[in-house]
Amino acid sequence: MKKIGILTSGGDAPGMNACIRAAVRAALANNLEILGIQWGFDGLIRREIMPLNRRAVANIIYLGGTILGTARSAEFMTSKGRQKAIKSLKEAEIEGLILIGGDGTFRGGTQLAEECDVGIIGVPGTIDNDVYGTDYTIGFDTAINTALEAIDRIRDTAIAFNRLFLVEVMGRHSGFIALESGLAGGAEDLLIPEAPHSMDELCRHLTKNFKQGKRSAIVVVAEAEQPGRSFRIAQEIKDRIGIESRVCILGHIQRGGTPTARDRILASKLGAAAVTALLNGKSGYMVGEINGNVAYTPLRDTWEKKKELHPELRELAKLLSD
Amino acid sequence: MKKIGILTSGGDAPGMNACIRAAVRAALANNLEILGIQWGFDGLIRREIMPLNRRAVANIIYLGGTILGTARSAEFMTSKGRQKAIKSLKEAEIEGLILIGGDGTFRGGTQLAEECDVGIIGVPGTIDNDVYGTDYTIGFDTAINTALEAIDRIRDTAIAFNRLFLVEVMGRHSGFIALESGLAGGAEDLLIPEAPHSMDELCRHLTKNFKQGKRSAIVVVAEAEQPGRSFRIAQEIKDRIGIESRVCILGHIQRGGTPTARDRILASKLGAAAVTALLNGKSGYMVGEINGNVAYTPLRDTWEKKKELHPELRELAKLLSD
Amino acid sequence: MKKIGILTSGGDAPGMNACIRAAVRAALANNLEILGIQWGFDGLIRREIMPLNRRAVANIIYLGGTILGTARSAEFMTSKGRQKAIKSLKEAEIEGLILIGGDGTFRGGTQLAEECDVGIIGVPGTIDNDVYGTDYTIGFDTAINTALEAIDRIRDTAIAFNRLFLVEVMGRHSGFIALESGLAGGAEDLLIPEAPHSMDELCRHLTKNFKQGKRSAIVVVAEAEQPGRSFRIAQEIKDRIGIESRVCILGHIQRGGTPTARDRILASKLGAAAVTALLNGKSGYMVGEINGNVAYTPLRDTWEKKKELHPELRELAKLLSD
Amino acid sequence: MKKIGILTSGGDAPGMNACIRAAVRAALANNLEILGIQWGFDGLIRREIMPLNRRAVANIIYLGGTILGTARSAEFMTSKGRQKAIKSLKEAEIEGLILIGGDGTFRGGTQLAEECDVGIIGVPGTIDNDVYGTDYTIGFDTAINTALEAIDRIRDTAIAFNRLFLVEVMGRHSGFIALESGLAGGAEDLLIPEAPHSMDELCRHLTKNFKQGKRSAIVVVAEAEQPGRSFRIAQEIKDRIGIESRVCILGHIQRGGTPTARDRILASKLGAAAVTALLNGKSGYMVGEINGNVAYTPLRDTWEKKKELHPELRELAKLLSD
Repeated sequence: MKKIGILTSGGDAPGMNACIRAAVRAALANNLEILGIQWGFDGLIRREIMPLNRRAVANIIYLGGTILGTARSAEFMTSKGRQKAIKSLKEAEIEGLILIGGDGTFRGGTQLAEECDVGIIGVPGTIDNDVYGTDYTIGFDTAINTALEAIDRIRDTAIAFNRLFLVEVMGRHSGFIALESGLAGGAEDLLIPEAPHSMDELCRHLTKNFKQGKRSAIVVVAEAEQPGRSFRIAQEIKDRIGIESRVCILGHIQRGGTPTARDRILASKLGAAAVTALLNGKSGYMVGEINGNVAYTPLRDTWEKKKELHPELRELAKLLSD
Repeated sequence: MKKIGILTSGGDAPGMNACIRAAVRAALANNLEILGIQWGFDGLIRREIMPLNRRAVANIIYLGGTILGTARSAEFMTSKGRQKAIKSLKEAEIEGLILIGGDGTFRGGTQLAEECDVGIIGVPGTIDNDVYGTDYTIGFDTAINTALEAIDRIRDTAIAFNRLFLVEVMGRHSGFIALESGLAGGAEDLLIPEAPHSMDELCRHLTKNFKQGKRSAIVVVAEAEQPGRSFRIAQEIKDRIGIESRVCILGHIQRGGTPTARDRILASKLGAAAVTALLNGKSGYMVGEINGNVAYTPLRDTWEKKKELHPELRELAKLLSD
Repeated sequence: MKKIGILTSGGDAPGMNACIRAAVRAALANNLEILGIQWGFDGLIRREIMPLNRRAVANIIYLGGTILGTARSAEFMTSKGRQKAIKSLKEAEIEGLILIGGDGTFRGGTQLAEECDVGIIGVPGTIDNDVYGTDYTIGFDTAINTALEAIDRIRDTAIAFNRLFLVEVMGRHSGFIALESGLAGGAEDLLIPEAPHSMDELCRHLTKNFKQGKRSAIVVVAEAEQPGRSFRIAQEIKDRIGIESRVCILGHIQRGGTPTARDRILASKLGAAAVTALLNGKSGYMVGEINGNVAYTPLRDTWEKKKELHPELRELAKLLSD
Repeated sequence: MKKIGILTSGGDAPGMNACIRAAVRAALANNLEILGIQWGFDGLIRREIMPLNRRAVANIIYLGGTILGTARSAEFMTSKGRQKAIKSLKEAEIEGLILIGGDGTFRGGTQLAEECDVGIIGVPGTIDNDVYGTDYTIGFDTAINTALEAIDRIRDTAIAFNRLFLVEVMGRHSGFIALESGLAGGAEDLLIPEAPHSMDELCRHLTKNFKQGKRSAIVVVAEAEQPGRSFRIAQEIKDRIGIESRVCILGHIQRGGTPTARDRILASKLGAAAVTALLNGKSGYMVGEINGNVAYTPLRDTWEKKKELHPELRELAKLLSD
């Protein structure tokens, strides 16, 4: 193997740059050339490709976002789009390709691995943590700390005003961010997709607290398909038990920012591991971290299998918030 | 004068605690007793009053929110409510009262000063900075830095995704937060109440940038009466020029958090100045800071007169963002 | 079991308060009374003990330090001191005792468990991470993020000035903080106790970089017995290869600050686990987390056995910094 | 005027990049070409000059350090060095030159303005705030907030351990950073160059507090010629009154980091004002901000005249800390 490529795809996540840096340095240390493909699969189709060297990745370890740019490619989802992408890979003489992204990226990657003989290795980079085959994804730790900082700020005003707040965090299909930021933020309640929200229980809890004089509370809500479900929940709470609440939707601030130590270390480890995997002839796998060690999972499993919330953390959140 | 009181009212703002601490220490240094009135004017009516000493205000200088609690009192807006409040003041033998809050608080304070002979001194504490008679209000500097941090984070993802973002900040009737956080954040455009937004101009600007290949942009929007106007603006941009955008509403995270150095210093200065003003027999004034010096403004002026945005900053924002 | 106690001892660590909160709530949920012992073993000897309830631990989850106070007790190291402590425990009718601290605390705890029949459970709370029997200690994640933030700041000025910096972090006998903050900060070199520093190698590396025109570099140094060894290293570098450097000693800022999400979650988990352990009749153990699960380690092992740096991370640091 | 240059010199300060960005955009808006001179006066002598355009300054507003690099030039202090620099200016056809830096930079600038006919305008960029002719320098607000964050962290551990800390901040000849960060941090005492430290008074104060049971205290110390004087002060305190203390030297972390809102706004304003000044034919002046307005001060005055600490803030610090 002489030349490999790397791209970031889907939602950006803090730590992607640390991962690119590690892959570039590991590639160079192994005498591989490495090309950066811009704007995800779209850029691959359009051949927006640039060489990467040590200098190109100097001092990017602390930057949020991704120096390669990212996109969600509709064209790559088509067979014709992928054919163009494969042609680009061939012409650039790329023998191995590292994909940093989440489940959407790995769906595309699974198909790509089946349709061409370029080595394909995925690295889990998404703030949502909803990728099977790794304890944590790159970006998750930063996202929960960002959410947590916001919850801490809102706590100040919730106490000062003796008022109920609904804080909506990211996580459409999974409650990882809500659970961990809520637990760490000392939230009084959580509404997560895994526990289809029992309005009865929430209202009972709030009513009980109110009777005891505790009027300030923070409920962390995982967003649904579209941001904004908290407004409906606020209305329902008011209709049912007459308690007013304020809504905060954290949105895209959870994606950005300088990555935490943990995200940079995870990203560095997996970026280097992806190069090693390619050198070892692996293809169609994601490199993740399980129990502190690098683990390989077939790309198809990463999005077909469902990663579960840790049941112990859910019980802990209940125990401590009650 | 032997005994004074202090309360926080209206929206909480970072630095209120630093102000309370300064007032307490300045009072004690002048052999005054000082009482803390909880939950704003409501607490005054209900006589929720506690003595404050050095120990009570130790280590609160860095806390967001307000240890006294705050509220927006409907009852105090009535003549009957104010009579109850005056009775509370008399029974507690409070001869001077410090009000930390914004324009709503000072409307109430203006009436209170006319209806009783207790010395009334206001201190401007609100993140909005929309109080006449002071260059800056306590909490504003923290709020713009919080908004700025969010804008910086969103910038990461805006660049990575090459996408337009609308970031909605607080400031219903005035664009102080939008102007200063937008200028500091390098926003491509601002929509503020003072410049009733010309959709034509914004769309022209965005179209021009898009033609030049610059697709990532951040537009800072001051919220209107209710948070959420950015969603309508996003729709309108899409309808007019076909550009998709993402919306972020920062909301209450702008109120909380540990205060900045500037807010703590301003709060300390004005808290001490309020005590001095009471000792000097002043009543019906707000203590503010103009050009670095303590300034006194009749309470009525603080909310009747309109504080203008600095025209130079508006021009600067235009020059640099273009 | 009806009544338990809790104390913090040794160097304070961010997350200790989150741990106290969790233990209190878990105790109350199991109908246990819980007492807070102030100022570590010294306070136990002096009987500075206060009851803890839900209210006492409300809104402490985000505070650095410890609400109980801490100390390093010389008296408790004596047999006579421990006898006093045991008498205090008996008189307060404490049947189980939770010790939050590091290796010094657990040395004391080991002896205490042998000398009395009160259940003793340790929880690892120290920024140094040098406790055998847990993947991470409470406070470590916050400490490396604090160190990392400092390194990022210094990077700005190192680049602007094209200059070499030595950044000294905590960790007298172990290089955990240096390794993880250095790896995450993209440090050019590390000097850790586990790799008794080869001045030759460092100087060779710096000389090579200088010849290639790279003059800005950050070397992360684990402090030795006393802070300040970096000054001697700086002098030695200058003497040997003529390169000037600047020294930064991060010191106690690494101990404080609001805990990260990971530290709060770990602290919450282990605080609750400590109560469960006592209820299950365990004594003389530390509750830690290994591979995501709660693990029990005999207290003696926690300080007699040596926790090793992860060799993979050391190699990774070398690979990426070179 | 067709072409101007810009350089940063002396210690770097957060906000220098925001200032460069503003100057570039203001220059381009006025149809001026603008060149960036790297590594301060050294780079001018060596002709390390690059053209700057909108793209070069995109997304630098939030970066610490300076994209141009900086240095303290010994050669420029000589007449011969300046002759080389003037030759570089002539050959590059630079008609106006913007210098961002502190007093050392302006000494050089004063001489340069006298020795050639290129328009010379200074902009105050230094964390120390010790430049006459401006209320604040670019970088000062960020530096005091960084120092403040460190003080807040140390406060956690000071309270938890009931211990005295000496925190040494930058500021060799002036106490601006010490005064404002100490006031905002609630420091118990300050040692600043302007009040040649009376050890008697400090020891009396500490002794009094200790007798009253208050054992945790933070004393903010402005560094002297060389960092480290706090170690000597700690020893002296111990010798005189037997109280142990811990020393923290913040050092270079005060220089880096993303600039605050206030620093970015000030930098933007003064960067644009410098271009305007050159266009108006001014030379040999510094543009600063006094009472919110742009002010011009002869370069010689900026370093010959002494900027005083605000006496009111000094009294306030005394009142509140006592």
